Amino acid sequence: MKMTGMINGVDVDRLNDTIDAIKRDPEIAKFRFRATNRWDSGGHNTTTIHDFYGAKQNVEHDHDFMIAADEPDLLLGGDMGANPVEMALTSLAGCLTTTLVYHAAARGVTINGVESELEGELDLRGFLGLSDDVRTGYKSICVKMHVDADASQETLDELVALAKGLSPVVDIISNPVEVIVKAETMEKVIH
Amino acid sequence: MKMTGMINGVDVDRLNDTIDAIKRDPEIAKFRFRATNRWDSGGHNTTTIHDFYGAKQNVEHDHDFMIAADEPDLLLGGDMGANPVEMALTSLAGCLTTTLVYHAAARGVTINGVESELEGELDLRGFLGLSDDVRTGYKSICVKMHVDADASQETLDELVALAKGLSPVVDIISNPVEVIVKAETMEKVIH
Repeated sequence: MKMTGMINGVDVDRLNDTIDAIKRDPEIAKFRFRATNRWDSGGHNTTTIHDFYGAKQNVEHDHDFMIAADEPDLLLGGDMGANPVEMALTSLAGCLTTTLVYHAAARGVTINGVESELEGELDLRGFLGLSDDVRTGYKSICVKMHVDADASQETLDELVALAKGLSPVVDIISNPVEVIVKAETMEKVIH
Repeated sequence: MKMTGMINGVDVDRLNDTIDAIKRDPEIAKFRFRATNRWDSGGHNTTTIHDFYGAKQNVEHDHDFMIAADEPDLLLGGDMGANPVEMALTSLAGCLTTTLVYHAAARGVTINGVESELEGELDLRGFLGLSDDVRTGYKSICVKMHVDADASQETLDELVALAKGLSPVVDIISNPVEVIVKAETMEKVIH
C-alpha cells in the first residue's frame, strides 16, 4: 500500500516522488554537506552552515545557522555552548529521530512523540596524549529511545531498529569514515 | 619548558594542574557526556545539553543548550536548523579547532586565528534503503584548516597534524564507536 499526504509532518507524496526520481537518476541522490568554522578564543568557536549541494544543484539554506561550541569551566572554557563531543551526541540524537519519523511516515505509521536520552563514555587521557591505550573519542554511546505511536510494541521496536540501521549519523559514528585534514593558506580556505 | 599563564584564551596553569591530577588519579579523566532529544514535527527536533559527569562529579552547564535540527525544503523539512549530518560536520570542525588551540597553548604557541571549511560526500540512496552498496553516512569528509600564528609553516603543519591525531571527534568519525540503541518506555527515558 502506497501512503499519501502528510504523515508525521512529512509530505509522503514528495518523499515517494523523490524516491522515484532517484531510482530513475541516482545522480540526484549525491549530496555534499558543508560547514565553515571560525575560532573565537580558548574552547569557543563558531560554525556556520550556509549551503549544500544536492539534486544536481547548489542550495542555500533559508538563512545561515550559526552554532557556538565551547568547553565548560571544568575543561577550561567559558561554557558558551555545547562542546564538540556533546555536539556529536546532538547530531546522533537528531539523526535517529528524523530517520525513525521519516521511515514511519513512509510506512504509514503515525507517531505521537519521540524522546531519547544519550550518554557517551570518554576518557580524557586520550585527548591529553597521556596514554596510548586510551582512544581520544567515545568508547561507547548508549541511546534510550521512547516512541509513542498508535502501534504495537513489535512495530515500535521495528521502527527503532530501522532508525538505527538507516541513520546516516549512526553509520558515521559506528563505522570508519575517511577524514582528510589539510593545512591550507587562508585564501584557499575561505573563498 | 613548562608554559604558564593564559595562552590562546586557555589557562595553561590549570591545564598543567589537570594533567598532573589525572596522572595521579586516572579516574578524574573518566567523563560521561549526555544529551536528550525531543521530536517536534517532520525533520524538526530539539536536543538539550544539560549536564555531564567528569572529575568524579556530576556537573551542570551554566545553562541548558537547546539545539534545533531540521531538514531543508529539498529534504522535506522546514529548514529551522542545521540537519544532523551538518551537525556532525559542526562537531568535527569545533573539535579540530579546540584540539589545535589547546595543544598549541600547552606548547606555548600563540594562535592569532583558525578558520576551517568542511565538506562531506553523502549518497541519499543509503538513507532511503535503495541500494545495499551505498552506505547511509558520509563516504568521506574533507577539512581545509588555516592557522594564523607567529610560527613557521612547519610548526603550523605540525599543529594541524596534532589536532587531527588527538581530536576526539576525528576519532569518533574515523574509527568505529559502539552505538547501543534501546527502545524504552517513556518512564525509563526521561527521568
